Amino acid sequence: MNPETTTVGDLGEDALIARLVAGWNPDGLVVTGTGDDCAVIRGSEDWLLLKTDALVEGVHFLPETEPERVGWKALCRGVSDIAAMAGWPGEALITIGLPAHRKVAWVEGVYRGVEKAAAAYEVALVGGETTASGPGNGVWISVALTGRVKPGAAILRSHGHPGDRILVTGFLGGSRHGKHLDFEPRLAEALWLAMHGPPTAMMDLSDGLAMDLPRLAKASGCGFRLHGSQVPCTPGCTLEQALGDGEDYELLLTLPPARVEPLRAAWAEAFPHLPLTVVGELTAPGSEEGLHGATGWEHFRSPEA
Amino acid sequence: MNPETTTVGDLGEDALIARLVAGWNPDGLVVTGTGDDCAVIRGSEDWLLLKTDALVEGVHFLPETEPERVGWKALCRGVSDIAAMAGWPGEALITIGLPAHRKVAWVEGVYRGVEKAAAAYEVALVGGETTASGPGNGVWISVALTGRVKPGAAILRSHGHPGDRILVTGFLGGSRHGKHLDFEPRLAEALWLAMHGPPTAMMDLSDGLAMDLPRLAKASGCGFRLHGSQVPCTPGCTLEQALGDGEDYELLLTLPPARVEPLRAAWAEAFPHLPLTVVGELTAPGSEEGLHGATGWEHFRSPEA
Repeated sequence: MNPETTTVGDLGEDALIARLVAGWNPDGLVVTGTGDDCAVIRGSEDWLLLKTDALVEGVHFLPETEPERVGWKALCRGVSDIAAMAGWPGEALITIGLPAHRKVAWVEGVYRGVEKAAAAYEVALVGGETTASGPGNGVWISVALTGRVKPGAAILRSHGHPGDRILVTGFLGGSRHGKHLDFEPRLAEALWLAMHGPPTAMMDLSDGLAMDLPRLAKASGCGFRLHGSQVPCTPGCTLEQALGDGEDYELLLTLPPARVEPLRAAWAEAFPHLPLTVVGELTAPGSEEGLHGATGWEHFRSPEA
Repeated sequence: MNPETTTVGDLGEDALIARLVAGWNPDGLVVTGTGDDCAVIRGSEDWLLLKTDALVEGVHFLPETEPERVGWKALCRGVSDIAAMAGWPGEALITIGLPAHRKVAWVEGVYRGVEKAAAAYEVALVGGETTASGPGNGVWISVALTGRVKPGAAILRSHGHPGDRILVTGFLGGSRHGKHLDFEPRLAEALWLAMHGPPTAMMDLSDGLAMDLPRLAKASGCGFRLHGSQVPCTPGCTLEQALGDGEDYELLLTLPPARVEPLRAAWAEAFPHLPLTVVGELTAPGSEEGLHGATGWEHFRSPEA
């Protein structure tokens, strides 16, 4: 690959990030830097979780989307990442790039959605910056979010083992029909799992099982075998949609086989309306079975990018 | 003002942010939320500083700007804000919105600049996200940065008193001739001031003295009197440029009169090549003297916005 001629779109997001951060060598306080849902920083009491996440008009929401739902989504995506580490959220800073001609009422609507999510998940809003979004540009929103986790208790993507069962919460697919704007991050569920499991590995499903399961398996040094017939598809969705639509914001986790059924029984009492489903197992590295060519959500290759 | 008809450009950045965050009511751990260079969060040992800052192509840098200098500037702006609180930087997360056709080499150049600044100021790079910047959009970069400060030792904008002298480090004006891309955040200087002063109030000069001095005075519940003839103008710059160009990234601070001359004498020994200049004093609220109509940098009113 020649970086002088290759474009960002040719390379794709994961390969680009891998190139960009290859030289990073964090110091001793950094438990996990890039490569997981959040960064984990060692502290004297609770450890610190750090996450940034951006929403772009025309990519993650449309100009006609109600601004309150845009604000809700902007903060909840970060909360979902904090949950996936088995942490709880702390403080958020909200940056919005805006064209000068945008109406004040629209921006206030976004903030109302952010405030609603902050109240729901006990996030303190501590900073807000606005900036011109640039010549010809639409709106973009970048959220920086902290979380806390008990020392050593963060659940990483990288500690799964061959033989561990792969599970997902909820139903997958069909997010584009509205769920991607109104979802509820699985914060209580993830903290419950950390207390009762805990999972060997966990992440949130933001880009679709077809893209996120290979990431978890790779981080754990494993392969995987997915049983497509077991995937809990949202009613009306095909398996392909369940694997590839993305923006499910459900939890993807792994558990040693002996712990699966006792945990599922306790789960059914705690969360009777939300399924916890076994969809496959981690295997020895080198084999990826069951995706049948399905692909997840790749920003730089989407038609709008 | 009718928010349904008023645009972001009509209202301006400070008034917009004031409206947006009016309902925020942070919890007991938040010492300072919006309205200062960083948010300050109480902790069990060192307190946490949080800052986000964004650079936009066409606003803060040009398409032809060398990418390394863009990356340097992106991280150093945040370091300057951490310095202004008398803190030291910790971890950074870098988010870049990119058009799909941008060359990989350009993005790698930005990261090299970020890495150079991280090495210079001992920042751990712990997260990187890339996303499509949106239909028709250029590049934008959002940096989230943590810092630490000893409990209670953060220097806020809000603790100046009438009679305090106003001082600035370095020379002001002319940043557009290159300094805005290559500046060195006044980190060592700010920590020295905190040990030897400490200033009653401090902030960094990002939007020009004409915009930032009224912000500091207002946060402290004071007015001010600026002595234009004492402002240390960059050689070749007029006073108007020194007040209004912005992006000086020097420190603006206040001190009780009796402490000014002893501190300046010690400063001259510690930093012989960087002036520390008295430019005016805080006064009783209600009077703002010496700006003579000069204005600072307002993003939404810039010709490019």
